[in-house]
This record gives sequence, C-alpha cells and structure tokens, in this order.
Amino acid sequence: STHEPLFGKTLLYIANIGQHEDFDAARKKAEKLGAKKVFIEDLRSEFVQEFIWPALQANAVYEDRYLLGTSIARPCIARRQVQIARSEGAQYVSHGATGKGNDQIRFELTCYALYPHVQVIAPWRIPEFYSRFRGRKDLMEYAETHGIPVPVTPRAPWSMDANLMHISYESGILENPKNHAPSDLYQMTTNPEDSPNEPDVLEIDFAKGERHFPQICSIVSELFLLWFLSGKHGVGRIDIVENRFIGMKSRGIYETPGGTILLHAHLDIETFTMDREVRKIKQGLGIKLSELIYNGFWYSPECEFVRHCIDKSQENVEGRVQLSVFKGQVYILGRESPKSLYNEELVSMDVQGDYDPSDASGFIRINAVRLREHNRLQGAAQKKH
Amino acid sequence: STHEPLFGKTLLYIANIGQHEDFDAARKKAEKLGAKKVFIEDLRSEFVQEFIWPALQANAVYEDRYLLGTSIARPCIARRQVQIARSEGAQYVSHGATGKGNDQIRFELTCYALYPHVQVIAPWRIPEFYSRFRGRKDLMEYAETHGIPVPVTPRAPWSMDANLMHISYESGILENPKNHAPSDLYQMTTNPEDSPNEPDVLEIDFAKGERHFPQICSIVSELFLLWFLSGKHGVGRIDIVENRFIGMKSRGIYETPGGTILLHAHLDIETFTMDREVRKIKQGLGIKLSELIYNGFWYSPECEFVRHCIDKSQENVEGRVQLSVFKGQVYILGRESPKSLYNEELVSMDVQGDYDPSDASGFIRINAVRLREHNRLQGAAQKKH
Amino acid sequence: STHEPLFGKTLLYIANIGQHEDFDAARKKAEKLGAKKVFIEDLRSEFVQEFIWPALQANAVYEDRYLLGTSIARPCIARRQVQIARSEGAQYVSHGATGKGNDQIRFELTCYALYPHVQVIAPWRIPEFYSRFRGRKDLMEYAETHGIPVPVTPRAPWSMDANLMHISYESGILENPKNHAPSDLYQMTTNPEDSPNEPDVLEIDFAKGERHFPQICSIVSELFLLWFLSGKHGVGRIDIVENRFIGMKSRGIYETPGGTILLHAHLDIETFTMDREVRKIKQGLGIKLSELIYNGFWYSPECEFVRHCIDKSQENVEGRVQLSVFKGQVYILGRESPKSLYNEELVSMDVQGDYDPSDASGFIRINAVRLREHNRLQGAAQKKH
Amino acid sequence: STHEPLFGKTLLYIANIGQHEDFDAARKKAEKLGAKKVFIEDLRSEFVQEFIWPALQANAVYEDRYLLGTSIARPCIARRQVQIARSEGAQYVSHGATGKGNDQIRFELTCYALYPHVQVIAPWRIPEFYSRFRGRKDLMEYAETHGIPVPVTPRAPWSMDANLMHISYESGILENPKNHAPSDLYQMTTNPEDSPNEPDVLEIDFAKGERHFPQICSIVSELFLLWFLSGKHGVGRIDIVENRFIGMKSRGIYETPGGTILLHAHLDIETFTMDREVRKIKQGLGIKLSELIYNGFWYSPECEFVRHCIDKSQENVEGRVQLSVFKGQVYILGRESPKSLYNEELVSMDVQGDYDPSDASGFIRINAVRLREHNRLQGAAQKKH
Repeated sequence: STHEPLFGKTLLYIANIGQHEDFDAARKKAEKLGAKKVFIEDLRSEFVQEFIWPALQANAVYEDRYLLGTSIARPCIARRQVQIARSEGAQYVSHGATGKGNDQIRFELTCYALYPHVQVIAPWRIPEFYSRFRGRKDLMEYAETHGIPVPVTPRAPWSMDANLMHISYESGILENPKNHAPSDLYQMTTNPEDSPNEPDVLEIDFAKGERHFPQICSIVSELFLLWFLSGKHGVGRIDIVENRFIGMKSRGIYETPGGTILLHAHLDIETFTMDREVRKIKQGLGIKLSELIYNGFWYSPECEFVRHCIDKSQENVEGRVQLSVFKGQVYILGRESPKSLYNEELVSMDVQGDYDPSDASGFIRINAVRLREHNRLQGAAQKKH
Repeated sequence: STHEPLFGKTLLYIANIGQHEDFDAARKKAEKLGAKKVFIEDLRSEFVQEFIWPALQANAVYEDRYLLGTSIARPCIARRQVQIARSEGAQYVSHGATGKGNDQIRFELTCYALYPHVQVIAPWRIPEFYSRFRGRKDLMEYAETHGIPVPVTPRAPWSMDANLMHISYESGILENPKNHAPSDLYQMTTNPEDSPNEPDVLEIDFAKGERHFPQICSIVSELFLLWFLSGKHGVGRIDIVENRFIGMKSRGIYETPGGTILLHAHLDIETFTMDREVRKIKQGLGIKLSELIYNGFWYSPECEFVRHCIDKSQENVEGRVQLSVFKGQVYILGRESPKSLYNEELVSMDVQGDYDPSDASGFIRINAVRLREHNRLQGAAQKKH
Repeated sequence: STHEPLFGKTLLYIANIGQHEDFDAARKKAEKLGAKKVFIEDLRSEFVQEFIWPALQANAVYEDRYLLGTSIARPCIARRQVQIARSEGAQYVSHGATGKGNDQIRFELTCYALYPHVQVIAPWRIPEFYSRFRGRKDLMEYAETHGIPVPVTPRAPWSMDANLMHISYESGILENPKNHAPSDLYQMTTNPEDSPNEPDVLEIDFAKGERHFPQICSIVSELFLLWFLSGKHGVGRIDIVENRFIGMKSRGIYETPGGTILLHAHLDIETFTMDREVRKIKQGLGIKLSELIYNGFWYSPECEFVRHCIDKSQENVEGRVQLSVFKGQVYILGRESPKSLYNEELVSMDVQGDYDPSDASGFIRINAVRLREHNRLQGAAQKKH
Repeated sequence: STHEPLFGKTLLYIANIGQHEDFDAARKKAEKLGAKKVFIEDLRSEFVQEFIWPALQANAVYEDRYLLGTSIARPCIARRQVQIARSEGAQYVSHGATGKGNDQIRFELTCYALYPHVQVIAPWRIPEFYSRFRGRKDLMEYAETHGIPVPVTPRAPWSMDANLMHISYESGILENPKNHAPSDLYQMTTNPEDSPNEPDVLEIDFAKGERHFPQICSIVSELFLLWFLSGKHGVGRIDIVENRFIGMKSRGIYETPGGTILLHAHLDIETFTMDREVRKIKQGLGIKLSELIYNGFWYSPECEFVRHCIDKSQENVEGRVQLSVFKGQVYILGRESPKSLYNEELVSMDVQGDYDPSDASGFIRINAVRLREHNRLQGAAQKKH
C-alpha cells in the first residue's frame, strides 16, 4: 500500500512528558508500520526544570486564568524533535495538530526557530488530507484497510491533552460553551464533593536561583507525585473561554492540581521577599511571558529576554510557605523567609519602629498638590460632585 | 474638661457602608459628648453602584490577590464627609486612621481632591497625641476619666474593618506573618469545613452599561444578601502579605464572599464577549486601576480617565454565567450571551466553518520569518541548543 | 487580448489623498483600457480629520521615529474602496502592493474588517503573476504588447509613496542601509542647506474636542499649504531602519514637514494642559496606537478602543503654542492656554504660593522607607557601593 | 559669629561633573570659613560610564523630550557625598536644593538608600531658614555681615545647572511659560543662526557590553569635547514644560548637545540590531527608567532591576552610524553592523530571497479572522461605516 515507502524512511518520535501512555505499545506499532527508527524520549525532568519552573517564576497565567499546562509542553516536545531531526539528517518534521488550534503554531515556531531550514508537514492543513478524512470514521476505515492498529476503547466525546502539569479537555460536546462539563470528564482530580473531609497542610520551600534547583525539583516531584497520582483534594479545575492566537475564542476545561498549589505558594513567597516596585514591573513581564508562551513564542528573542529578566527578579525569592488544601481550594496559612522584606516592628500598630508618623502628613500633602491643582484649574471635581 | 469646648463645635459623621454597627448607640454617644450635629449616612447604594461596580468591571485585584474591599470604601466615605463639611462650613475634617496605614492616605487624598482648602486633623500623626496615648490602656483610662462610654466587650487581638463587600483583619497577633489565623477570626464566611456538603448553583446576569444598571444592582444585592448574611459556602478567604503605599509590607486576612463570586463571573462573561486585543489593553488598565484604588487616588484625573476607558470596554459585556459554589470554591459551569464573540462553528474540530486551514501555514511561516532570521544572524538558538 | 474581458467588469478606483498625480490622465487610461466605471475620490478632508488628527492626538510615532504618514493613509484609501465595492456589488477587490511589505496588510485588514466576505486579489502574491513578471522590464514589455500606456519618464531608482502628510522613499539603491540618500531624492522639503537663513515664527492653536474641529482643520490646511507646497524650511526629514509587521527590517526615508511641526506643537500643549499621570497612561496608549496603525489594524476593536481613550484624554488639550522653524528644526518658544495646569505662583522659586516646603521632607522620608528597608534587609546597596 | 562653631565640624564637598567652576576658589573659600576638611571630587569619568551610558542605552527621555541631564547627575553626586560621610563618620549631610524641586528628592533618596541612617539637613525646607532669608538680598546681607565671600558678577535672572551632559535654565523670568528665552541665555551651544553653514559628518561606533567600554568612553569624550567646548552646530536646545515629582508643572530650557547626537545614533543602531519584539519590551522599560531617574530613584531595587534588563537587551547593539550635524539638527545618513538583523536580500523588492509571498495571504487572512468575527457578531463596523 502507498504509505509503506514513506514509512520506511520515517523516524517516529514520542515525548514522555508525564502523560499516561503505553510507550511500549506505541513503539511496537511504529515498528510494525515500518518506521526506520523510533525515539521515545523521557523529557519529564527537563520539562519541569526548563519549562514549568520558569513559567511558575513568572506566575504565568494566560488571560487571568489558564496556567498554560499545554502551552509550555509544546516547545519542550518540539525542541527534542528538531534535535533528532538535525542529528538524523531529516529535512521534514510532521505533527498531527489541527489547523485551527494553537498547538500547530507552538510546534512549528519552535521548529523554525531552532532549525530554520526545516520543512513542516501538517496533514490537517493539507486539503488533499482533510478533504479525504472528514471525520474519525474515515480514519478508522483507512486504518482497518491498511492494517494500522487502532485503540478499541470508544473515544470520549471530547479531545484531551495530558502531561505532568495538567490535562486539558476541549471540542466535541464541550464546544457549546453553555454545556456543563460531565462529571466523569475529570481524570486528574477527585471531584471536590468526594474529596477528603479534612484538609492537608503542606510546607513548600523555595530556594533561590539555580544553585538550589535540585531542592526545588525534588519538591516539585513530591508535589506532582501527590497530586498527579491521587489528585485527592480536587485542586485546580477550571472551565474557561479563551482567545486563541489565530483569532477565535475556544472553550477549554483544565485540571492543573500541582501547578495551582505552586502558583499560590510562589505568589505568596514572592510578595513577601520582592520589592513592591520590582514586583509591578515583573508582573507586567509575567503577563507578557504568558502571552508569548500561549502563542508559541517560547523560542523567540523576546521570550528569552523576558525569561532572563524574570529570572533576575527571583534572586531573593526564597522561603517557606505553609498552606492547606481542601475541597478544591488552596489556603495560604503563613510564611517565613531569610530574605523577607517584611519588617514586623516597622509595620506594627503597637510599636513605632524606625518610622515617624508625622512624615506621612507631608507625604500625603505633596501627593495632594497635583490633585488640588487639578481641581482648581480644570474643576472636574466641582463639576461632578 | 478640656475636650468639651471642641466638641461643642464638632460635627459627627458616620457612614453606613454595610458594616455591622449600632448606629443608634453611636448617635447617642455623640450627642452625649456634645456633638453639634450628628450625620449617620446610608451610603450602601452608592457604594455598590459607584465604587464596587466600577472596580468589578476592571477585575480590580491588587497584587494579584486583594479585591480592594477596604480601599474602595474609603473614597466613598470621605466624599460624603467633605460634602457635609462644605455644606456645613466646616474647615477641618478628622479621622482616626493610624499614621502607618493606607487609609489615612485614601481618606485625605479624597478630601484634598474634592475640597482643596480643607485642613485635615489626624491625631495618630500628632506627636502630642500619640506620645500621650501609647496603647489601648491609656485611651481607656482617658475615656473613663472623662465619662466617654466605651465598649465593654474585650477587643479581639487584631484590628478589623468591615463593609458590604468584605471584612479585613490585621495587626496584633497577625503581625507575625508566620502565625496562622485563629479559626474563630472569620466573621463573614462559614469555615469551609463546616459549610454545606452540597454545592449551590447560581446564575448571574450581566447587563450592559448603565442603562440596565438597576438590574445589576438588584443582583448584587441578592448576592450580598446571600453571602454577607450567611456566607454559607465559605467563599473568599485569603491570607496575604501586601505592599502598602507608604513603602512597608503588611499582612492582611480578608473575606470577600460576594466579590469573589462576582469577580469569577465577570471575568468569564468578559472573556466571552470582549475582543482579545481589547482585553489585553483593558487588563493593563485594570491593574493600573487597582494600584490607584489601593493607593487612595480614586479622585484623581488618572483614575477618572482609567475608569472612563474601562467603562467603554464594557459596552458589549453582557450575558449569563452559570456557576456553582462549594466549600470555599467557585466553579464556572457555562455561559451564554447575545453579544458573544464565540463562534461554535468556526472553532469546531468537526466543522470547517468560514475558515481555511491552509491559511494557518502562511500565518505560521510569516511569524517565523523573524525567528529564523534571528537564529541565522544572531545565532542565539544554535549557541544554546 | 486576454485582459479585456476582465477589464470590462472592472471598477477603477483611485484615492486623492494629496499626492501629486494627474487624475485626468489616470481616468482616461482606465477608460481606454475598458474599465466599467472609474472612481476618483477626493479623500483629503477625511484623511486629515479622521486619520491624521487622531494620530496627532496620540503623538503616534512608530519605533520612536516614524510619523506613520503612509500607514494612516491606507485604511482611509481602503475604506472607500470597500464602500464602493459594496455599493457596486463587487465581490473582489485588488491592489498592487508587494508581498513583502506592510501595505498589503493595511489594505486587506481594512477590507476584511469592513466587508468581511470580500475576496482580495493581490497579484504580487500570486505565483503565476510574480514568476511571469520578474522585473520592471517584463511589465513594460507586456504593456507595450497590449497597448497599455506607461509613463515615459525614467523611474527613480527607488520607490515612493506620497500624500498630504508625507512622502516615503524605499527600495532600490536605498536597500543598502549604509548608502546615503542622494541629495536629489527629497521632493517635499528644501535641503536645509538651501533653506532660508532666517527662521519663521508660527503660532498654532489647538481647540478642544470635535466641537472646534473645523478650526483645527483650517489650521491644518494652512500648515500643509505652507509646508507641502514650499517645504521651505526643510523640516521633517528622517532616514531610519524600521521593523515591518511581517518580521523583516527595512530602510525608509521619510519627509513629514507639517506633521513634524504639529507633533512638536501638540506635545507641548498637551504636557502643558494634561495631568502628569493621565499623560503617562496616555503615552502608553499612544505607543500601542502607533503599533496598531503601523501593522494595519486601524479598523480593529482594539484600535477603536484606544482611539476612544486617547480622544477622551484630549478634553482639556487646548491652547496656543509659539514656535520657530529654521533649517530643518522646530523650536518651541512659548505656550499659553486657558486650561493650563501650570501654576506660576506655585512653582515659583521666589514666591511660596499654596505650598509648604516642609511637607517635602515627609514626602521624601516616606518614599525612602522602602529604599532603606531594602538596603537593610537585602543589603544590595552595601554590597555594591 | 554663630556659624563658626558649626563650620569647624563641617566637611565641604563639591563634585566635579564637568561644570565650569573655579574649584580652587571654592576650596579657599571653604578653608577660610573654617571647614574641617574639603573634598573636591572629580566624578566625570564615573558620571559618563555609570550614569550617562546606562541612560543612553535606555534611550531615556522623560515625557518624550527631556534627556535627563540634571537628573542623572544627582545620584552620582550624592553617592560620593554619602561615601565621604560614612568614611568620615558624619551623621548629617546637607544640600542647598529648594523645597519645591526635584533635586532635593534625587539627592536625598540616594542618601537614604545608600546610608539609611543618615540625617539630612535641607535649609530651604526649614521654616527658620526660609522665613529669615526670603530672597537673594537677605542672603547677600548675611554674607557681607559675616565675611562670607560672594560672587560680584550680577546673577542672571534665572537659575542654571550645568554638567558634562547638559545645562538647564529655569525660574526667574522663565517662570512665565509664554515668555521666550532670551537669546543670550544659551551657554553650551551656538545659536543655529550663527552656526557653520556647512554640516559636519560624524561616525559613531557602538561596541557591545562592558568589555569594549573604554572604546565607547573615548568616543563619548571626543564627542563631549567637540560639543561641550564648541557646541558649534547648536544641537540639543529644547524649551519644555515638564511635570515634577512633587506634582507641579515647571518650565525648563535645556541644552544637551552631545547627548542629543548620541541618542539619535543609539536609537538608529539599536533598531538595526535588536529584534522588533525585544525592542517593544525594552522601549517600555526605557520609559519606566526615565521616570525613575527623573523622580530620584536611581538607587532603588526597581531601578537596578530595570537597568539590568536594559543592559541585557544591549548584547548585540553594536555597529557604526554615520550622521551629519547642521544648524541644530542631527541627520542619520547610514549605518552598518556585524550584528545587524537587517537582511538586504530578504527585504529586497527585486530579489525573492528566502521568502514566499503567498505565505503573506495566509498571514493576513488569519489576522483577519478576529476582525471579521467582530464585525459579524458585534457589528461595530457596519453601524459606523
């Protein structure tokens, strides 16, 4: 049949970024189909350290809600893909992402950035392909005709994407934004109604910079172990409409159990140890980073620049956060840090500290100069009140 | 005694912004002490419509976490205070805020902006005052000596501030940022461990602009009724360290039950109906607004400008959000809107809609032009990967 | 010949936006070639009022230097094009912009935004076209063969685009960014070496809002009259490298005589009458607007939103600026305004005004709280100095 | 007389930052008055390298016009002042800046940031001082009475501040913003009407990072030599109204000859070598930096952070710019760089390069998806056009 000659030259590549998948079966299927070589790469450690961690440092949240679990996986996957392509002398790479989504962009911009002369084959954007295979049924028939093994379990009426960080659900019956997600959809977290009736209390340590990185890493592993395997407290479920880079709105449902806890904890220790004005500037950079990650620009000069700046901002972000998790919610309970900028004596209502309250009068009066002048000269205040 | 002559010329003013307070007792106490006039003003409706609502439209959250419940109340309170001062011919206004906090600034900037020639008396910044009254005990003794009635209930070992929107707790034993909040601290929400074991499902309607404002308002009232009175699902508790305008970090614990639900709902309907790029610009303006509100600049030309711009952005933000509340958490379930920019057919994985997937190839290739050139000419990619 | 059937159904459209062009000759040529209808539209007034003026209000300058003279003309031209297409029932529009430039995007995004179902024909992106016509010579031969009249004057070795606002030069011998522009390139301004040896002094009045718009407009006309026709003082020449939306850098040389003067004058009166903090926010919006205009998004929800916000910021921007122009330079000499926020008494070194210098001590001390704490707790200062 | 005991304990400190001043006379006067020690410090080199250069890298311009010549000198001066104070064991520092200006803030924030426990004596904010000395005449009489030598030349009816970078003029007859500056005011630049009738052509090299810093530095010196001494082409004069940090508008006239040329040249080479999107982010950081510098926050965590980020952005900013200066104006003529991101073949109108024009169709169509949807669903376009 016609696909075999192609397959004889084809390299198969699957990235293990923590999704539940039978990698052995995948290897066997690829070999059976005649793949020249099969690469099944365990990227979990670099995914955590080089992608999740910088996003966390940035408190990267797209459009105030989405923790970017799929977005940050794409450059990690595609980077290894082009590394393999380069070292094996492959001139083409391919992926199965659709022509309407973000993932095609995230994969391909990474490919072009790291391997500028690569050619990308995206079947779902080739008219001959997508007009022949108009739905799942056509694909199944083709597979059967050509002896390609396919899963026999019925597919959920939506699409999923999972990794160490999160799982996403979209399309199918979820495309109607008014429809509620069915309760059996969630795979990573326990329904909060069924989760334990007692909170668990955690301590999360943040060590600074890369020197202490292994320490963070082990904490990350522990957390993911705890949440990814059990998801027992049901943390991190969201149902949102988001704006894709190609200009359409889509509806997504996400579970990001460990990431949600880490985000809360990092936000807390960061505010505790970072100067207010640095934080404001860094907040803007974090929003920028979240847009860049979402849109697929991880490997771009601007994203490298922003990551560098954010990394710089984290020099003193270290300490310990106590929090409890219960029924889908994360509660910060307290925090401590050797690098805290919090000064208990200075802020105390009961102790004066190194602070003269009468200075505040001048501070307020000078801040009012502009407001009083504006009132006097442009009279907005009088007009309206 | 020495305070009486002053009191004979003094106007007493208390704002009702939804806090639990015995206004009759306050009036009697003021009269007993010889206040010239007593003003107890019900500002609840204008607080909701003119302050909470614009902050909600902006999704105003200070430093990613604080919903500004106290901050937005201050200009509302002080505005009426200077209206009364002006109409009664008073040249001085006074307040009891401390010299280390934000509230002194919020009160006074409002006063100066709306009544530029007013004089402000802030006892806690006057050395004669704060060096005489060094603690609660001194004040109690003074009150006893001068026949000033004081509450007999023992004071909680922290400070509180409540209104329709939220309640805050700070100082005292909370000043140590590592200390956990005692479980009996919370007054507005049920402990999620004790809250109902079944979620409640709500629908929240957003109508556009001011024309439908009463409708919003009644919904707000219903919600606040539901949450303020019962707080039954324990929504909206946070424990944070924040950055005060005067340059110190402080620890605050807040309950914002209704505001938290409304924020989630508004974020959802806004993303559903607002263009992506408008949203980005508006997000930046919302962050700016939250800083202005926190710092006390509600009545400033820049805050008026930003509120105007944000209000403009809301023209099409209308629709209905379904959500459930359970054990301290808010879950969006679905949404619908006559002004939605969501196009189910366009985004569908199963239907092509008015979209040509092959366009995406050009889109990606052009976005890659810059990245490929950067790689080629400045070689960052090769160096590092 | 093959083009005639097409031409019989073709509408010809030329916009007059102030460029030097023989519109009668253009009409005759179109009629000779068999155009079904010819539209030569005088858009000069709407170009000034609806495009130049809002850009000026924003102080819109792309990448700190380019005054966007070509960019703002494109949506003006394309808007009328699709108005005509709609009213005449045309389903296709076409333009002659190249496939590497910004103008194709500016034209087409306007078309799609205002006439979503229009089809665009861009010959320079059609392989059959651009592979047949590989250079000017091929086009000239084709024209001769088919009796299409072409200009006999030799073409300058660069490309030009002119309108009321400016003229641009690019491509050809200018593509080498090191090459100096030849002195005979400039068409709109006198070489400053040959310009008058005495400055001229001008007064420019800005009236607020749209109510006084005709007044502004007449001033604009006078200025353009003065500069476009004579360009006598050589104002507004720049030679820059800029970043195109498609991701490549290009070199452009521009003359924007009137716009440069107006920009200087507007900046001056704006700072004189606008609150500092409003100005900061508006400055950011102006930069955003300049990017949107440059990239072709004039007719986008975000550009409409930003224009609205900027327009709001201009409510009090009125007054008179005195300036001199001399040898390519604009010098502000003085300004006055009924809406000035400048208070001569307040700022005076010799008069105290309504200002207490001792307030500044408190202002500085409070601003230093954060800096002193940072030094004490994170020790950056001691380490480095 | 009463000032002697104080003077016996007083250290005199003058910074040489390039102003014209008789430092020997100053030393003698201080010794005559009984200063305990006199420090006349040559800070010119560190002023250029540590202050002017980072500001230039940022293209730091306050409110679109002011090149911050005075602002960047203040932290340089005050840093050495507190170094001396610390090493000499002085607990107080003093300065003669007025109570309405920016300089008091710039000096003192630097002092507090670097020497947190220092006490600042600012006579012009002490009521006993400023109510005794209400004008120049009172000071002159005091000096005469106490044998303090004073300059005999009549003072100009305005205030001046000069350094290597620029000179500023304000106050006195300049306080009326409508008054034109007298032609004999300018000290650093020739009146363009009298400047040479032929342009000079310059080449400016930018070397990257700190490694090549001496090279930059010598160029800077040459330029300042050329411009500061001769100012022959009259470059860098501006007359502006600006917004002071304390909330009032003031009028300033500035000459910044060398800085203006360097700004033009740096802008040009930066755009030539920096990625478009990095440049956008860096532009925002540069505006932030200019506000921080103007307001006196050079030694703040946020300013250090921003300077670090901007420095990072400059890694590839190197190359040579050719420019001419003539009659007050700077004209860029051409540029070249080994790190240029400009690709002559890619951008050429005559050569296709590694670029497929048909990709642009998809790029435009995808960018239009959002605009077409907006039109269709929210109908703004139809309504208005």
